[in-house]
Amino acid sequence: MVFGDGKTPQQVRSIAEEILSRSGRVLVTRATVEMRDAVAEAIPGAAYDPVARTISLNTREGAGAAGLVAVVSAGTSDIPVAAEAAVTAEWMGRHVESHHDVGVAGLHRLLDRLGDIRRADAIVAVAGMDGAMPSVLAGLVGSPVIAVPTSIGYGASFEGVGPLLTMLNACSAGVAVVNIDNGFGAGYMAAVIAAGAGRAGPG
Amino acid sequence: MVFGDGKTPQQVRSIAEEILSRSGRVLVTRATVEMRDAVAEAIPGAAYDPVARTISLNTREGAGAAGLVAVVSAGTSDIPVAAEAAVTAEWMGRHVESHHDVGVAGLHRLLDRLGDIRRADAIVAVAGMDGAMPSVLAGLVGSPVIAVPTSIGYGASFEGVGPLLTMLNACSAGVAVVNIDNGFGAGYMAAVIAAGAGRAGPG
Amino acid sequence: MVFGDGKTPQQVRSIAEEILSRSGRVLVTRATVEMRDAVAEAIPGAAYDPVARTISLNTREGAGAAGLVAVVSAGTSDIPVAAEAAVTAEWMGRHVESHHDVGVAGLHRLLDRLGDIRRADAIVAVAGMDGAMPSVLAGLVGSPVIAVPTSIGYGASFEGVGPLLTMLNACSAGVAVVNIDNGFGAGYMAAVIAAGAGRAGPG
Amino acid sequence: MVFGDGKTPQQVRSIAEEILSRSGRVLVTRATVEMRDAVAEAIPGAAYDPVARTISLNTREGAGAAGLVAVVSAGTSDIPVAAEAAVTAEWMGRHVESHHDVGVAGLHRLLDRLGDIRRADAIVAVAGMDGAMPSVLAGLVGSPVIAVPTSIGYGASFEGVGPLLTMLNACSAGVAVVNIDNGFGAGYMAAVIAAGAGRAGPG
Amino acid sequence: MVFGDGKTPQQVRSIAEEILSRSGRVLVTRATVEMRDAVAEAIPGAAYDPVARTISLNTREGAGAAGLVAVVSAGTSDIPVAAEAAVTAEWMGRHVESHHDVGVAGLHRLLDRLGDIRRADAIVAVAGMDGAMPSVLAGLVGSPVIAVPTSIGYGASFEGVGPLLTMLNACSAGVAVVNIDNGFGAGYMAAVIAAGAGRAGPG
Amino acid sequence: MVFGDGKTPQQVRSIAEEILSRSGRVLVTRATVEMRDAVAEAIPGAAYDPVARTISLNTREGAGAAGLVAVVSAGTSDIPVAAEAAVTAEWMGRHVESHHDVGVAGLHRLLDRLGDIRRADAIVAVAGMDGAMPSVLAGLVGSPVIAVPTSIGYGASFEGVGPLLTMLNACSAGVAVVNIDNGFGAGYMAAVIAAGAGRAGPG
Amino acid sequence: MVFGDGKTPQQVRSIAEEILSRSGRVLVTRATVEMRDAVAEAIPGAAYDPVARTISLNTREGAGAAGLVAVVSAGTSDIPVAAEAAVTAEWMGRHVESHHDVGVAGLHRLLDRLGDIRRADAIVAVAGMDGAMPSVLAGLVGSPVIAVPTSIGYGASFEGVGPLLTMLNACSAGVAVVNIDNGFGAGYMAAVIAAGAGRAGPG
Amino acid sequence: MVFGDGKTPQQVRSIAEEILSRSGRVLVTRATVEMRDAVAEAIPGAAYDPVARTISLNTREGAGAAGLVAVVSAGTSDIPVAAEAAVTAEWMGRHVESHHDVGVAGLHRLLDRLGDIRRADAIVAVAGMDGAMPSVLAGLVGSPVIAVPTSIGYGASFEGVGPLLTMLNACSAGVAVVNIDNGFGAGYMAAVIAAGAGRAGPG
Repeated sequence: MVFGDGKTPQQVRSIAEEILSRSGRVLVTRATVEMRDAVAEAIPGAAYDPVARTISLNTREGAGAAGLVAVVSAGTSDIPVAAEAAVTAEWMGRHVESHHDVGVAGLHRLLDRLGDIRRADAIVAVAGMDGAMPSVLAGLVGSPVIAVPTSIGYGASFEGVGPLLTMLNACSAGVAVVNIDNGFGAGYMAAVIAAGAGRAGPG
Repeated sequence: MVFGDGKTPQQVRSIAEEILSRSGRVLVTRATVEMRDAVAEAIPGAAYDPVARTISLNTREGAGAAGLVAVVSAGTSDIPVAAEAAVTAEWMGRHVESHHDVGVAGLHRLLDRLGDIRRADAIVAVAGMDGAMPSVLAGLVGSPVIAVPTSIGYGASFEGVGPLLTMLNACSAGVAVVNIDNGFGAGYMAAVIAAGAGRAGPG
Repeated sequence: MVFGDGKTPQQVRSIAEEILSRSGRVLVTRATVEMRDAVAEAIPGAAYDPVARTISLNTREGAGAAGLVAVVSAGTSDIPVAAEAAVTAEWMGRHVESHHDVGVAGLHRLLDRLGDIRRADAIVAVAGMDGAMPSVLAGLVGSPVIAVPTSIGYGASFEGVGPLLTMLNACSAGVAVVNIDNGFGAGYMAAVIAAGAGRAGPG
Repeated sequence: MVFGDGKTPQQVRSIAEEILSRSGRVLVTRATVEMRDAVAEAIPGAAYDPVARTISLNTREGAGAAGLVAVVSAGTSDIPVAAEAAVTAEWMGRHVESHHDVGVAGLHRLLDRLGDIRRADAIVAVAGMDGAMPSVLAGLVGSPVIAVPTSIGYGASFEGVGPLLTMLNACSAGVAVVNIDNGFGAGYMAAVIAAGAGRAGPG
Repeated sequence: MVFGDGKTPQQVRSIAEEILSRSGRVLVTRATVEMRDAVAEAIPGAAYDPVARTISLNTREGAGAAGLVAVVSAGTSDIPVAAEAAVTAEWMGRHVESHHDVGVAGLHRLLDRLGDIRRADAIVAVAGMDGAMPSVLAGLVGSPVIAVPTSIGYGASFEGVGPLLTMLNACSAGVAVVNIDNGFGAGYMAAVIAAGAGRAGPG
Repeated sequence: MVFGDGKTPQQVRSIAEEILSRSGRVLVTRATVEMRDAVAEAIPGAAYDPVARTISLNTREGAGAAGLVAVVSAGTSDIPVAAEAAVTAEWMGRHVESHHDVGVAGLHRLLDRLGDIRRADAIVAVAGMDGAMPSVLAGLVGSPVIAVPTSIGYGASFEGVGPLLTMLNACSAGVAVVNIDNGFGAGYMAAVIAAGAGRAGPG
Repeated sequence: MVFGDGKTPQQVRSIAEEILSRSGRVLVTRATVEMRDAVAEAIPGAAYDPVARTISLNTREGAGAAGLVAVVSAGTSDIPVAAEAAVTAEWMGRHVESHHDVGVAGLHRLLDRLGDIRRADAIVAVAGMDGAMPSVLAGLVGSPVIAVPTSIGYGASFEGVGPLLTMLNACSAGVAVVNIDNGFGAGYMAAVIAAGAGRAGPG
Repeated sequence: MVFGDGKTPQQVRSIAEEILSRSGRVLVTRATVEMRDAVAEAIPGAAYDPVARTISLNTREGAGAAGLVAVVSAGTSDIPVAAEAAVTAEWMGRHVESHHDVGVAGLHRLLDRLGDIRRADAIVAVAGMDGAMPSVLAGLVGSPVIAVPTSIGYGASFEGVGPLLTMLNACSAGVAVVNIDNGFGAGYMAAVIAAGAGRAGPG
């Protein structure tokens, strides 16, 4: 994985080329349009997602057991982080279903999606502000929840510290937390978990 | 009001006597059994609540318009703070209904109580750990919610900072917050609000 | 409500249209001039307040019992947050009276306004720097005070943490706090409280 | 689950009885010897683990697909938290293998255990002080790592904040974090993940 | 000066003896009764103040120009810190007038004392909880105010951080701050300032 | 005083005019060149200091007893804050002597200036980074030291928190602290103190 | 040494000239291209390093015993800080060997370099994110390790606080820490240590 | 090394025996009298230092090149941490000279010792409160300074955070920092550095 922030398009391009040649796959996060252009020349098949801000390519065949990952996000502003998680899990070969705008301020919308969300092997739950959704969700499902705090909110969110603490203190069991705005980390973790469910799979 | 912490039983007794004689009512919070005994000698009618850790007496007649305050708490460990809020609001002349153990980890329990909670003129919502309940509750009711973070939880609750931030960042409107473990402040605020609803009332 | 920060004018416009059609009212906070222009095309009747940075429209008839909200602010730099609170409370149907530049450094100015402020059913008190005004004010009035810390001040204000703590630690009872710079939240909370006072109102 | 801290033996006993009768299993964490004695009278089959400080009983039959959980801890002082995680995962029906004293200060000891650790479906990694072990371990294994910071260390560990941040910032992918000293939360999460691997299992 | 905390009575005694013989005066702060007894044997003339927790003796003649220091404190619990400041300033040869229980929650009590407080050459203002009093006071007087935050308050006072920030952010000019609970430092500073006013004095 | 940050040149101009007409003096801090131009039109006699970033005018006659203020700063980057303090004290009628670049890394430079610094009635000590100079200086002089932390330094200065704590923890008595980068507050405080020394003055 | 941040090119130039004339050597850190141009005119022999962002010149002869410093860095983004350390140590007359991209996520790369790193008299270890590498490295070598946290990472790195705490809490002995991003400080410290090893050197 | 805190005397004894038999030396820090007694039975030659709270034994012959370590401490309360550093360095075979009570509040005492301190190959500088001494000292000597913050001080020392930040921000070069109260870590680091100076030594 290449973390785009603070790198030049040329640095991203050359690191991406090296990783692809070595491992058969590459994922750039926090990718700008300039990075996309620089990479596109060198790696024509790479896909750019402007919402998730990712450049991705996976040339490995049969990238492992599938498994289903649900990506659930609370507010409109959380969507880019959620999209980064979704792209990551798909890039690792999982099926992904996304559910946006299901924060606790409108609880019924979350409850309406429960049937679908429960079918997932692993869940990524993304929230800023109060960060309460993953804790509520974990009390309603049986699958493991990977919670991602985002840096969205008024002053006392402190760039994501507020929801980070909420999630670490989740009173529902079955929640673990990744870094603020770290959609990649959550998508990766959920994909590994869902693959485990699939791996043991057909026996 | 007398904040008992860090005072001797004799200090509490003499301050309580002075307040009572001046204002016709007195409330001691964080009261120990020793404070109760010291006060009981001087003020025979004072009531002691061992859960709320309060000593209270209100000799004013017709202590104002009634109004209904709901006190809602998330976990067993939050009950003392909730009880302090309830005693305070009753001492100020409000009707109080308490709902304990309705945290978001068991969401259905909270939903089961909604009918009753919605009838209140003001709501005190007490939670430690993730502090998520007030935010969820405020999305489901129309009355103002006074949220109280408690210092209950594992390490990253940081003695109540975790739920404090959650509540300040509540994504539902209609929530305001008081200090950590400040049941008195929340009960007082809710009582003032509910009295306003009653004051304007039927005359 | 639509929180404008971090959204494009087009996003704001389409969310505003959807909310208005569903609920008959809409309020955009942290609105830029670009958002105003985008929304004006779609929603001609919407009002823009350049100080409060709000776009608002409420087409509901008889938006509830009136009630009076006082919005009190300490320094010149606190006015935008105070104005956001005032616009919000008016948009919800309350009467609003604003009192600016009445911080504790010039105490007599605050004392001069007390007569007017005391008539309010609910008070929004906005302050940065030392954040001391809401605590002083609450000792002088009987109505509930919703305190809003602002991110104004020298270094050790820490973007509003200083006044936030001051307000949470207010030694006067009858104060509850919302997030840093959250004029909307305070105005909404005060409007709900004042409506309660009015609701029970004339019988 | 019952969190013993701050509860009386009698409270623990009555809550434990109620949970057991309702769900067929019960787990008390942070259990003292007094709690053990109180519970033993009411629930004769409950097991007490003095290192993990747990009281546990699971009367459900065939408590689900097995799966293997590895519990890895860095220092001697981290063992109680690790033991809490191990007891939890076993109580949920998983196989558990524990590896103690494999911190990064003696890297070869960790490397020596890699063969065994890699066979696990989910890994709990417990560390205080610098909290570096989970990050190092995640770079060497393919299974998901649930990291638990402990409150062990000199002053700048700040009761576990130091290792908590280390783990959230882990530069290896495949790590998610639970609260400080939260062995139960980590064991539960790992058990759910490992069960998923087993659930899909034999078809 | 000898800071008693964390020293044995014997250590305090021997340090006090050495300081006295070298400088003709000695002041022990945070002194316990055991320290008092140990020092009394060696230094018969030393005075012990049980509220301020100080042991003091000044054998210097004509300990400098007098000057007047006012020590003002907000709550009952702030009195020990205020008393430490008062003892310190007197020990340095200043006249001291103390005003207790004049916090901002009962503003009229503070206003009633203004006439006396304004006569002081330097003012020590001690407050916990919201720490608002020094800022209010400085707006009403012309003399320099040395503010002392105390560690008194509910959770979000964070052992004095709340009032410390309030005082650093004071919106009135003419305030400077010393460490939390540092009555000695404030009394010393005020005494030095008041001596300056006196020193230049009668010529 | 007018704090220029976050105000428009027109706001600064109109506030400055109003203050000047009411009180006969005005001081603008954090003034930009644009503010200078706006004010110059309305108040021709106002002086602009580009290092201190101040606009100042004092038309009061005989602005009080003189007194001497020493302004001492540690590093080159601390000079603007020191200059703001110096301009403020002069504007209030004090004599001011400035000593720059006398931080503790080159202790002899500070020691070389001691003779001059000791003659001052009050001392402003400005330092960023380790903030150690005021503590060292206070151990070497008899006059009161007003310490100003600046936001200059590497990462762990945390925008001035590092030197702020150093100064609050000064092991020398006779130090009090103002807000980060608050040259105005320190200059004002020192001027008030030095005026006291002068006021009692020649008799 | 001249810290370039926040200075103008002209200020840097004149300070650099003065230092060079006084001491025969000069080092500017955080130097921009504009500073380079300004200095180049006045000091033709000065070298500019665009990665380390340094301008350096040392005209002293035989700048002391050599000694070998190893500069080891974890991630690509840590290279500028590592380069600043390397330039500093070379400027002080040490031999320097740099090892980049040897973070703990790819442990084998670090292990591959151990032979070379162990030959150094002092080691600078630079890491952001989890900051785990210095602790791991110190467990594998005998020479003293100067650890430098960098401000690189996702949100919960908090601009370098995360790796700073990791390094202060290092469970391996033989590690000491400098400020966040302070490559100069680490390079200087390592150079002094390595010179000591060399100084006693050949006799 | 064995960190005694939180271990039982029996645990300390058995770990100490194992380490001694494996490595020929052992050092227990934070050792209580009970631990001393438990260890004394098993390891008769071990020395107990009641000030440093250490148990130590080194049976290795010719424990390396000597080298001289100076241990310098600021206040009386810092002596235990300084003593732990001194015992550690001696146990590793270095010569150690200690200088106590040389804080910056009495600068001349520090200056009086400079001649001796400068002869050391490495310096441990221990300080609480403002933590200023190491920065001042490093400006006066050429040898590397290992700074140790202690948890001694009034409230805003925050258990050692204040001096920790001071030391990290030291404006003198040649300072690196270890954890709060970590006398062992500083003594170890200084001993390694001084050994390097000695190792290269006589050739």
